[in-house]
Amino acid sequence: MTRLTIALDVMGGDIGPRVTIPASIKALENDPDLFLLLFGDRHQIVPLLNNLSSDIRTRLTICHTSHEIKNNQDLSFALRHSKGSSMRLAIEAVQRGEAKACVSAGNTGALMGLSKIILQPLKGIERPALISILPTMQGERSVMLDLGANINCSAENLYQFALMGTIFAENCLGLVYPRIALLNIGIEEIKGNKLIKDTAEILKQKTTLNYIGFIEGDSLLNGKADIIVHDGFVGNIALKTIEGVIKNMISLFKGDSSVNKTNHICKSIFGKLMKNLFLKGSYQRLKNINPDQYNGASLIGLNSVVVKSHGSANIDAFSYAIADAALQARQNIPNKILVGLEKY
Amino acid sequence: MTRLTIALDVMGGDIGPRVTIPASIKALENDPDLFLLLFGDRHQIVPLLNNLSSDIRTRLTICHTSHEIKNNQDLSFALRHSKGSSMRLAIEAVQRGEAKACVSAGNTGALMGLSKIILQPLKGIERPALISILPTMQGERSVMLDLGANINCSAENLYQFALMGTIFAENCLGLVYPRIALLNIGIEEIKGNKLIKDTAEILKQKTTLNYIGFIEGDSLLNGKADIIVHDGFVGNIALKTIEGVIKNMISLFKGDSSVNKTNHICKSIFGKLMKNLFLKGSYQRLKNINPDQYNGASLIGLNSVVVKSHGSANIDAFSYAIADAALQARQNIPNKILVGLEKY
Repeated sequence: MTRLTIALDVMGGDIGPRVTIPASIKALENDPDLFLLLFGDRHQIVPLLNNLSSDIRTRLTICHTSHEIKNNQDLSFALRHSKGSSMRLAIEAVQRGEAKACVSAGNTGALMGLSKIILQPLKGIERPALISILPTMQGERSVMLDLGANINCSAENLYQFALMGTIFAENCLGLVYPRIALLNIGIEEIKGNKLIKDTAEILKQKTTLNYIGFIEGDSLLNGKADIIVHDGFVGNIALKTIEGVIKNMISLFKGDSSVNKTNHICKSIFGKLMKNLFLKGSYQRLKNINPDQYNGASLIGLNSVVVKSHGSANIDAFSYAIADAALQARQNIPNKILVGLEKY
Repeated sequence: MTRLTIALDVMGGDIGPRVTIPASIKALENDPDLFLLLFGDRHQIVPLLNNLSSDIRTRLTICHTSHEIKNNQDLSFALRHSKGSSMRLAIEAVQRGEAKACVSAGNTGALMGLSKIILQPLKGIERPALISILPTMQGERSVMLDLGANINCSAENLYQFALMGTIFAENCLGLVYPRIALLNIGIEEIKGNKLIKDTAEILKQKTTLNYIGFIEGDSLLNGKADIIVHDGFVGNIALKTIEGVIKNMISLFKGDSSVNKTNHICKSIFGKLMKNLFLKGSYQRLKNINPDQYNGASLIGLNSVVVKSHGSANIDAFSYAIADAALQARQNIPNKILVGLEKY
């Protein structure tokens, strides 16, 4: 892979460096051509860097700042007081070309606001959007956008989301002529509000895009479409609903009380074997659609790659977000969207 | 329980009488004071009534019609050609007082349209809404509305949904001072669109209602609120998303390939025992949040009880919808909403 530097806001997220630093180390271990700039409080970062190999140590750089944007800060306050913060410094490193992408688990509104101001939307893109990869039951992947960057959208906005989603799916998921669907309350043409119907009319006319019609909430994981398009309000509700249900189901499975009840049986070797055989299959497949693996939501439509991790991301999830940013940067998604605006 | 008659459109749904008739028999078996009027094609119904006890046989009445509204019919066509259809006859039986409630798995738009025209909204209710019971991870129940009856809503509409949801939760779920939340893209006051913010302002002033703030999509099953309020577009997407994810997870569990792989081990009695012990606990709890048990979405805010079953409902699910209609009719929910409009 090509050598690549990513700027991280390591102070963001519910836990901060105790998650983001081990996740950074994991990402560096998994990607030998990756370099990381760690923006945050060195007093919190350094104690977490014990026992590193010299290879890993040389590929990370601590960029100290004790200032951070808090998660619960009001957006306008956060933006006014952002100067010198770990998040803003990480974005500015991308602006100066010192890094090709930025990752943060911090305040979503601030990350979107600062990214738009500092990195600027691509020429021709009216509204950058939050996009995320979604697992399907068939073990494949689709993408959803917008996930909350734009609460009120026009049909033209949704059309541009479909276009950006197509380029993302082609380049990051390797799909050819990926299928676009609009999230709606029914699949019949007469269903939906004016926004959805107007967008459908635009998409039908763009024959270079593979628009296939409407999709309902109960089919989001069924692989019926590769790109699922909606405004940021509906998309945020749908994605969080998926995540919540899956997390609940996994916790239900993990906390299986019947396993405890049968512990006296499990003490036999045979019991343990059976437990592993029966539980592993289902659990493994549940884990395949674990949202941790789909943690990186990206702000697409800017001049550079910006990935927003969940605030509640664990180490694995934050390292996936870094890997996601690396893939987008290496694929040069922003430039491909610029080309796509001409092509489609 | 009090003696009660319900009118059923047995032709509706993806399968029709082969689901609705066995479901009707099941509902009669479970509720000895229930009487059913079965509206539909006697040639399809009669062969499904073999071997009934005389008690069950006397509590069901076939009301023959060979006309039915198809699921895929355009709404205005369906309404224009509804005369004499199984759905319309069932609603008209309620209008004439021959039945206290109506249940159909047919065309949702037609059921809502005909119900509103024939049964009429309650005096003071601007928009009837679709409401459904939602399971929580704690084994309790909450309600969601609107689920698709009203795509474009005002803040006043959402306030009335909160009021109707409160009365439904108090009477059908037995809750005291149930907690109301608005579905939004964040829990902070600054989050959301104008509709959500305006509705929050109205609800804050109604101190007789227990408004607790915003809820996000990932908390819908977590029992944080008893009544979750949203417009019909967002609610339809959220509910279908929940249903789709749960169905997918259950199918993942049912189709556990590791169980097949270990079949040679299972042939021992001990193996079978282990399989049952380990699988039953998780599967039982998955079934506890199986959408089948929460099949009945009700059109609330009319002068009579109308329950819409899923088109894809199986026998269990359709019989739950009948039981749900019976509960609402016995609680006289429409009258309690009328009283509530004065009280709150």
